[in-house]
Amino acid sequence: MIAVDTLIHARWIIPVEPESVTLEHHTLVIDAGRIIEVLPTHLAQAKYQGACTEALDNHALLPGLINSHTHAAMALMRGIADDLPLMDWLNNHIWPLEQKWMSEAFVRDGTDLAIAEMIRGGTTCFNDMYFFPDITAKQAIQHGMRASIGLIVFDFPTIWAEHSDAYIEKGLALYDRMRHQPLISTTFAPHAPYTVSDGPLEKIRTLSDELDRPIHIHVHETLHEVEQAQQDNGKRPLQRLHELGLVNPSLMAVHATQLTDAEIAMLAEAGAHIVHCPESNLKLASGFCPVARCIAAGINVALGTDGAASNNDLDMFGEMRTAALLGKAVAGDASAVPAMTVLRMATINGAKALGLEHEIGSLSVGKAADVIAIDLNLLETRPLYCPVSQIVYAASRQQVTDVWVAGKRLLNQRQLTTINLDELTAKVAQWQQRLSG
Amino acid sequence: MIAVDTLIHARWIIPVEPESVTLEHHTLVIDAGRIIEVLPTHLAQAKYQGACTEALDNHALLPGLINSHTHAAMALMRGIADDLPLMDWLNNHIWPLEQKWMSEAFVRDGTDLAIAEMIRGGTTCFNDMYFFPDITAKQAIQHGMRASIGLIVFDFPTIWAEHSDAYIEKGLALYDRMRHQPLISTTFAPHAPYTVSDGPLEKIRTLSDELDRPIHIHVHETLHEVEQAQQDNGKRPLQRLHELGLVNPSLMAVHATQLTDAEIAMLAEAGAHIVHCPESNLKLASGFCPVARCIAAGINVALGTDGAASNNDLDMFGEMRTAALLGKAVAGDASAVPAMTVLRMATINGAKALGLEHEIGSLSVGKAADVIAIDLNLLETRPLYCPVSQIVYAASRQQVTDVWVAGKRLLNQRQLTTINLDELTAKVAQWQQRLSG
Repeated sequence: MIAVDTLIHARWIIPVEPESVTLEHHTLVIDAGRIIEVLPTHLAQAKYQGACTEALDNHALLPGLINSHTHAAMALMRGIADDLPLMDWLNNHIWPLEQKWMSEAFVRDGTDLAIAEMIRGGTTCFNDMYFFPDITAKQAIQHGMRASIGLIVFDFPTIWAEHSDAYIEKGLALYDRMRHQPLISTTFAPHAPYTVSDGPLEKIRTLSDELDRPIHIHVHETLHEVEQAQQDNGKRPLQRLHELGLVNPSLMAVHATQLTDAEIAMLAEAGAHIVHCPESNLKLASGFCPVARCIAAGINVALGTDGAASNNDLDMFGEMRTAALLGKAVAGDASAVPAMTVLRMATINGAKALGLEHEIGSLSVGKAADVIAIDLNLLETRPLYCPVSQIVYAASRQQVTDVWVAGKRLLNQRQLTTINLDELTAKVAQWQQRLSG
Repeated sequence: MIAVDTLIHARWIIPVEPESVTLEHHTLVIDAGRIIEVLPTHLAQAKYQGACTEALDNHALLPGLINSHTHAAMALMRGIADDLPLMDWLNNHIWPLEQKWMSEAFVRDGTDLAIAEMIRGGTTCFNDMYFFPDITAKQAIQHGMRASIGLIVFDFPTIWAEHSDAYIEKGLALYDRMRHQPLISTTFAPHAPYTVSDGPLEKIRTLSDELDRPIHIHVHETLHEVEQAQQDNGKRPLQRLHELGLVNPSLMAVHATQLTDAEIAMLAEAGAHIVHCPESNLKLASGFCPVARCIAAGINVALGTDGAASNNDLDMFGEMRTAALLGKAVAGDASAVPAMTVLRMATINGAKALGLEHEIGSLSVGKAADVIAIDLNLLETRPLYCPVSQIVYAASRQQVTDVWVAGKRLLNQRQLTTINLDELTAKVAQWQQRLSG
C-alpha cells in the first residue's frame, strides 16, 4: 500500500481532459497537493492508503471552476444600484461610492466576501482586476484560494496610483513579490482601451512579452465604446490594440460583445483569448458575444462572472448555464454551445487563457489538486441521464459539498474551513451601513 | 385576543400589491386558509393569538410564485436529450419516448416529481398542459398544491383522445368534476395553431366565453412556425386566431417570440395575456420575446418555465432572473424589465392571466394564503440593500424555507410535508431505468 494524503472515491469523475469522458466509480488520488492518479475505486483501495479518505457515493468530481473575470471586492456593492442605465449606474452610483469608500479595508473585506462565496460555489481560481491588488493577493493566500491578480493600469489617478507609469511600477513590484507564491499568478490589467493610452499599452505589451504574463483588458464591451473610439481615433479598439501589438496569445479580451467576422478571424489567427461574461452583458444591456462563432473560428473562450455589482453573484454554475442557453439563442441553433463546451469554458479554457493550463483546469495527473464535489442526489437533478448535462442545466452551486485547492480542503460538507463566517458577516454588515449612508 | 390559525412574523413582507411596497417587521395573519390581516408585528402580538406562530427574523414573505406554463410530468425527461436542434429533439427523442411510455402512471409520478420540485422552489400554483390532465389534477389535490389544469386538445389521436371532439368532451367532463375543487381551476388548452384546426378552435372559443375559462395555447414560439403558417394558410398564426375570435382577454399566448408592432398592439388592445418562457426559448433557440415592448404597450406578461425537458428545471427564481437579464439585453436598455416587474410577472400577472387575481398573486387581505418565506441571511445575499433586487438577482430557490398553500404548510424548514421523498425518489429511479432502456 502506498501512503498518500487524500483519496476521494466518487460515483462520477468528469476530468474535462480528455474531453467528453465521464468515469464511474473511480478514485482521485492526491498527494503533496497534486493529483497523482485517477483509477477505478476497487484498484485504488488495493493500491493506496489515504491519510484522509472520502467516499462520495452520489457525487461528481470536477476540476475547480475558474472565474476568468471578476472584480472580487465589488461584492460589497452587490445590489446597491440595479436596473439603471450603464452610465447612470457608473457615474452616479458605483464610481462615487468607490471614490468615497475605496481603501485597503474595503478591498480586504470585499475580497473575503467574494472568496467565501466563490468557494461555496465551486470556484477555485479567480482572475481579478481591481484597486489594491496586493490586498486581494494577500487575502487569497490567507484563505488558501488560487488567484490571478490583475496589475491594474489607468491613465488617470486613483487611490492606487497617480499616473500610468506609477501603476506599472507598483504592478511590477507586486509581480515580483508574488513570483514564488504557489497560489498566485499575475496578469497585466490595463482597464480598457478607452482608459489607457497608446504609450502605457506599448510598455505593457513589452513587459508581457518579457515576463510571459497575460494582458487582461475589457474590450468591445458595448457598441458605445466602439463607436466612441471610431470617433476619437478613427478606428475600432481591437484594430488599435492590433496595431500596438497586443493582439497575440497573451491577450484576454473580456466581454467582446461587438465583433465583426474579420475581428473574429484576427483573434483566432493571433491565438488571443476571449473571456465571455454573459450575465453582466445582459444585465448592463451591453450586447451579445457571438460565442458559437468564436468557438467555431478556433478562439479559446473562457468564462467569467464580472463583479457582483453587475451580475449580482459570483456563481459559475449559473454563468455556465446562461452561457449555454444564451449561446444557443444567439446562434439560432439549439445544438450550439453544448454542456461540455461550457464546462470547458469554465475550467480548462480559463486555465489556458491565464497561462495555467499545465497547473489547473482538468483532473489530470501531475496537476494541482483543485477539485470540487457536487452532490447530484437531489430531486432537482433527478432523474439523471447524463451528469455533465445535469450539472450545467439543472444543478445549482448549493449542490457543491466539498472543495479542495492544491489538495487543501477549503469546503468540508458545505462548511468553509479557512474563513470565519460570523466575523465576515459582521464586517459585511458594517460596510452595508456605511455604503447605505 | 383573537384566535387565528397562523401568525407569521417576518423581517420583510413584500405583498406585490400595492406595488413597490416592502413592509418591515410585519406579521401575516392567516385564518381558514385566507389572509385576514397584514400589520406591524408589535400590533399583531397584542391583537392575535395564533394556533401556530412562526418568527422568521431573516426572511422575506412573498406571495407564492405562479408558474404560468409548464408540462409538469415531463420532469421525468429532464436532461434526457439536451443540446439538440428542436426538430431532432422532438421527432427523435421526446415524441418517441412519450409514444412508448405515456400512461397514467407516468403522469402521476412525473407530476409528483414536478410538484415536489416546485414546492421546494417557492412555486405554489402551476398552469399545466399535458396528457391525462385528470391525473395531474388528482396529484395536485393530493399534495395540497394549487394548479390550473389545461384541457388539452389536438386534431390528431393520442393516448388521451382520438379526435378534437373527443378531447373537448373529455375536457368538459374534467372541467365539470373539478368545478368545486378549491385548489383546481381549468383552462382550455388547444396545443398550438399548427396542431388544432379552425373548427375545434371555434368551439373552444365559444366554450371559453360561456364558461369564462382562459385559453392556454403555444403561439408564435418560433420563426419556423410563423413562416410555415404563412405558407399553409397565407396568414400568421395570431392573425388566424384573431379572425377566429380567440384574441381576447381569455387568451394566454405562450412564448410569443415573433411579434410585429401591429401584433403587440392587437394583443394589448384585446386585453390578451402573454406567458413568457425565457429559458425554454433560449435553450431551444426559439427566439427572443420583446418583453419590454409588450409591457410598455400594456400587455399583461406572465412567466413560465415550460417543461423540465426544455429548461431543465422548474425554478421560478431562475426564470425571474433570466427574464430580467434577458429583457434588458433584448431592449438594449439596462433599466428595462426591473426586479419588481419580474416579481409581478411571477405572481400577480400570472394570477390575472389565469383569471385568479381575486384569489392569489399578492399578499392581500381576503386572498388565499399562498405564501413563501425566503431566508436572506446567507452570504450570497449579503450585503442587502434592497430585498426585491436581492431576491431577483442574487437569491436562489434553495433559500425558500417555508411554503403555505391556502394556509396549509407544504414546506416546513425545507421539508416537504405532503410528499414522501424516499418513495418519490425510488419511483423516479425506476422511470430513469425504463426511459434509458
